[in-house]
Amino acid sequence: MNYQGKRWRTIWRNADDTVGVIDQRRLPHEFETLTLHTMKDCAEAIRNMTVRGAPLIGATAAYGIVFALRDDASDENFAAAYKTLHATRPTAINLKWALDQMQAAVAQLPPGKRLETAWKRAAELCDEDVAVNEAIGRNGLAIFRDVLAKKSGGRQALPAKINVLTHCNAGWLACVDWGTALAPIFMAHDAGLPVHVWVDETRPRNQGASLTAWELNQHGVPHTVIVDNAGGHLMQHGLVDLCIVGTDRTTALGDVCNKIGTYLKALAARDNGVPFYVALPSSTIDWTVRDGIAEIPIEERSAGEVTHLRGKTFEGTLTEIQVTPDGSPACNYGFDVTPARLVTALITEKGVCPASEAGLKKLFGK
Amino acid sequence: MNYQGKRWRTIWRNADDTVGVIDQRRLPHEFETLTLHTMKDCAEAIRNMTVRGAPLIGATAAYGIVFALRDDASDENFAAAYKTLHATRPTAINLKWALDQMQAAVAQLPPGKRLETAWKRAAELCDEDVAVNEAIGRNGLAIFRDVLAKKSGGRQALPAKINVLTHCNAGWLACVDWGTALAPIFMAHDAGLPVHVWVDETRPRNQGASLTAWELNQHGVPHTVIVDNAGGHLMQHGLVDLCIVGTDRTTALGDVCNKIGTYLKALAARDNGVPFYVALPSSTIDWTVRDGIAEIPIEERSAGEVTHLRGKTFEGTLTEIQVTPDGSPACNYGFDVTPARLVTALITEKGVCPASEAGLKKLFGK
Repeated sequence: MNYQGKRWRTIWRNADDTVGVIDQRRLPHEFETLTLHTMKDCAEAIRNMTVRGAPLIGATAAYGIVFALRDDASDENFAAAYKTLHATRPTAINLKWALDQMQAAVAQLPPGKRLETAWKRAAELCDEDVAVNEAIGRNGLAIFRDVLAKKSGGRQALPAKINVLTHCNAGWLACVDWGTALAPIFMAHDAGLPVHVWVDETRPRNQGASLTAWELNQHGVPHTVIVDNAGGHLMQHGLVDLCIVGTDRTTALGDVCNKIGTYLKALAARDNGVPFYVALPSSTIDWTVRDGIAEIPIEERSAGEVTHLRGKTFEGTLTEIQVTPDGSPACNYGFDVTPARLVTALITEKGVCPASEAGLKKLFGK
Repeated sequence: MNYQGKRWRTIWRNADDTVGVIDQRRLPHEFETLTLHTMKDCAEAIRNMTVRGAPLIGATAAYGIVFALRDDASDENFAAAYKTLHATRPTAINLKWALDQMQAAVAQLPPGKRLETAWKRAAELCDEDVAVNEAIGRNGLAIFRDVLAKKSGGRQALPAKINVLTHCNAGWLACVDWGTALAPIFMAHDAGLPVHVWVDETRPRNQGASLTAWELNQHGVPHTVIVDNAGGHLMQHGLVDLCIVGTDRTTALGDVCNKIGTYLKALAARDNGVPFYVALPSSTIDWTVRDGIAEIPIEERSAGEVTHLRGKTFEGTLTEIQVTPDGSPACNYGFDVTPARLVTALITEKGVCPASEAGLKKLFGK
């Protein structure tokens, strides 16, 4: 997407065979890029959330494999790098998917031929992610048009505003470009649809307040930041026409694992008759998992993300503050699982389907 | 309750006929008191949340009336003070209730006799609040014992831990003493019950992370601060045995208006079979309102409470940081309404009743 008149992706190969990324920890206050030189740099960038979002985590891990093969293209080193990268974040399944894609690409090659193929495959994975998200955007846009038509009640003139609620950041910063949940929003706005977005701030790391708000702001999409607590009240008062979120892992039965708090919004949507959509590349479907609540490992992150917050002081410097009392413990589950029964439909690159085993099987021809 | 070995209330009359309060904006990092000298001081303390919590707002407004009568005990001045104080916060009904109590006490007296009676009645309201909350605590404690007995499955030995989730601050800081939702928690802990509290941080003003965590910490009650997004996940995994919250206004049909986000927790409790209790003094019941969602005015506060956060820097100074991008708007509804159908029971000073018209009428003999 565009930032200050230039087209950006979130990850790219530099001319000197390093890899560039946007340092997402400094947004929305500072836009800075960072250069990754090694497999360990890639693992650390995923772990410390310089890069985040299931698709971008996968892309970064792919380049981590490239760096590992550059240093030592043996099977042993590949396996070690796979293990290190896989251990960085436990919940997003794209990470494993991307590593498996890299493995499939190079496993049968002699070590001496692996590096070039790895560079090529990593770049392809990035390009594929862009194409997939564009397709998700188009499929979501059709839904937005339907919701708008329904809300306008068939009147030609003065279409009503569509209010969309989203949680966390499933925008272009979470992917290589476009985004998943935000792709249809960008496209709807570009197509002249009167879309307004309620942006859940998404504690503890505030990816909504920082990244989603920044993306929408840059793109000129009308939006309002709200605390995560506010969505239920808005839905009770008819101020949300649809919810759309991303996912880090979707089960074969359509359960959706996404940023902690997603489940609460899905409950409110159900209670108020608001459609709840999940946008996802098929690479986030884990066909081996059926019961999301019982089976998906939920990452526990540092309590410090709950007790402390980062932001910009009045003077403009980035600083961290403590909000809890000294001595009060905190805990920090990164994700929750929204049962398929609460999901109106899944929006994928292949089309839209019910969040069910039958729906997924039919769409993906399994 | 105790703080550093001394017994405190949240509001008191000083020897020089001023009124003291704890400055709750500085907690949990600094414990400071503030002196109120005039009706305007009281109104400002309510408005800027030096004091907050429905019962304490009522008590502070009562002293505001005292100061107004000290300056000018005429009917006109009483009416003006009533209007000013009533306008400070629109949602909590105790505010109106306390003002009406003061009016009833002095209306029939000649102006020259009003001040002394007003001081007396304000002090009584405070004492009554303490007694009411103590009764709520005892009634809630009986429920805690039941939940514990059920969880222990009738075994004598080693009772299981009871995990309680609460939202916002309905502790002694929200009242004159004891608290509403926290009163049974303090009593359960004092009685040796193995209670552990999940403390919702309660964005945007973090009354959970700052005030509830501070109260529990001071009292030695085991607790863990969580982001507001986490409760659904905890309930899905059996980690919450009951929810208990306060309320700023309860309708004649049992709808409960409380801090924004309460409704989302009630939905999650219902979806996971977790009992959801609301603790309230009967002064928060608005017998004139039936449909809480349609009829209760929801306060909209400054967007700055969403975009900016206060806390303690590494160096120990209190400071404010901005978390949203420059140019991203925010909005800030203070409360939401939990429909009676999601509430397991109401815990009042008169006893426990179903959240329904019949339940409330029966308990209060209406």
